[in-house]
Amino acid sequence: MSELTVERVGEAFAALGSGDREKMLQYWDENVRFEIPGNHAYAGWYEGLDSFLGFLKTVGEMSGGSYLAENITVMVNAEDGWSVDVNRDYARRAGVPEGETSPYLLMDVEAMHLLRWRDGRVVEGRGTILGDGLTTSSLWWSPIAADGTRTA
Amino acid sequence: MSELTVERVGEAFAALGSGDREKMLQYWDENVRFEIPGNHAYAGWYEGLDSFLGFLKTVGEMSGGSYLAENITVMVNAEDGWSVDVNRDYARRAGVPEGETSPYLLMDVEAMHLLRWRDGRVVEGRGTILGDGLTTSSLWWSPIAADGTRTA
Amino acid sequence: MSELTVERVGEAFAALGSGDREKMLQYWDENVRFEIPGNHAYAGWYEGLDSFLGFLKTVGEMSGGSYLAENITVMVNAEDGWSVDVNRDYARRAGVPEGETSPYLLMDVEAMHLLRWRDGRVVEGRGTILGDGLTTSSLWWSPIAADGTRTA
Amino acid sequence: MSELTVERVGEAFAALGSGDREKMLQYWDENVRFEIPGNHAYAGWYEGLDSFLGFLKTVGEMSGGSYLAENITVMVNAEDGWSVDVNRDYARRAGVPEGETSPYLLMDVEAMHLLRWRDGRVVEGRGTILGDGLTTSSLWWSPIAADGTRTA
Repeated sequence: MSELTVERVGEAFAALGSGDREKMLQYWDENVRFEIPGNHAYAGWYEGLDSFLGFLKTVGEMSGGSYLAENITVMVNAEDGWSVDVNRDYARRAGVPEGETSPYLLMDVEAMHLLRWRDGRVVEGRGTILGDGLTTSSLWWSPIAADGTRTA
Repeated sequence: MSELTVERVGEAFAALGSGDREKMLQYWDENVRFEIPGNHAYAGWYEGLDSFLGFLKTVGEMSGGSYLAENITVMVNAEDGWSVDVNRDYARRAGVPEGETSPYLLMDVEAMHLLRWRDGRVVEGRGTILGDGLTTSSLWWSPIAADGTRTA
Repeated sequence: MSELTVERVGEAFAALGSGDREKMLQYWDENVRFEIPGNHAYAGWYEGLDSFLGFLKTVGEMSGGSYLAENITVMVNAEDGWSVDVNRDYARRAGVPEGETSPYLLMDVEAMHLLRWRDGRVVEGRGTILGDGLTTSSLWWSPIAADGTRTA
Repeated sequence: MSELTVERVGEAFAALGSGDREKMLQYWDENVRFEIPGNHAYAGWYEGLDSFLGFLKTVGEMSGGSYLAENITVMVNAEDGWSVDVNRDYARRAGVPEGETSPYLLMDVEAMHLLRWRDGRVVEGRGTILGDGLTTSSLWWSPIAADGTRTA
């Protein structure tokens, strides 16, 4: 079993993005639960790796591929089996040009993942957003633009 | 063309619930726009009578038929072509027993519809919710229960 | 006792802005209750005319005098003693220049007042905000700018 | 300079609660900035230890001393100077009896502090709340009960 280190947390997220399921399963338990914060349409607990991957695919579609996450730092408690990674997340809604500033169309927040590790794999993850980012990101996740037009 | 009266506003909502499209079109323009307030998954402008009827069907499904609206009063400005009806709205999420009090599962709010009339028919409608009901009803519209379990 | 008309609703709000207490009391009951919608620091029921006037003074201070309300329409139900007035409300936080677009600093919403009249005077009023304006106006009422700096 | 360890994070919070300013200053920089998440009246950045202590005093008053925080785990990255502590926070509004379940009166959330350490002391801290706790805790921080009565 691999030790929980800062590097291993980074590798876990790289595996998620790799599209290689075997690689993912080296870091993520097949029954992992992952919570997206807030009360918007995509919030709540995703049960199982496939469900969570489905959510990530939705993010890609909603952002038209513009989603970017830049890691700021990672902390671990190897003894107890916890990690937190802090990131800056940026995403425009699909079709929205750069330079847009409405929170209904642009997400630009700092966020954290709290991960619970067991036997070398993530069994539970929970996202949170810093500052008032949960409010502004709820606008991004909503089906509307600032004028109430349904965009989804 | 029928005059805009308190009675006519009541008839317009009764027609919506009748399932009789010809009757509906006596009160609602085929191209009526209707705005559901807030930023939840079902918020924003519904364009056209069919789109709005689709929303009402969704309400029926999400509430498992428990949705109730009790009219409190109606006001009209016949000269300018506006009406407001004030209602108490009550709905449990489908499958939720009576007596539940969590705002994620029970909606119990006072709300208004602002309607714009032209040539005897509604061409635009906008819902609003009194007090802090927009916040609590957003929890009801959300896909989660209080513990984050996705219920939808 | 004066009849409830569209004109009388307009006069009631003009009296509020006049600073003339005798004039106000021709339209507003001394014990009027008025509800500001939402859950921000200034939300909830203000009990009595003086309490409500205190709220209006706060609005003036927070907006540095930039608050503007433009009436769109008024509806009455004279028989039952109800009125609704629809308005466009615009306000920048004190010290914020024109042209600012952040919802933490600029309020630009359409809103309604639902008034209950008895014996020719308003005994209860409730504000609501159209669309997703309750969310964006909560940011305006908050003590922070978009970066979390406390401005109040 | 003391090394950043799980124990030191615990000691830093114990010092905050000790009322002993000399002890606090062993862990917290006099110019520490601390961010309370959300957009309620007490949200945003508190600049300086005294400002942050003022916030903590407010929490004590608003909760009538019922505030409890139970630590779940702590993670550190000693090399980069970051820590996160995860806690369960519980508080009733002053005067509210045990057993109350309205989110306007009872806060019961899981939350994290992200701390930035420099030269052995905390120079910046940011709170976040897990799940949909930011929404429900905003109701707790609000001046109203569920019926809109102003309680503050």
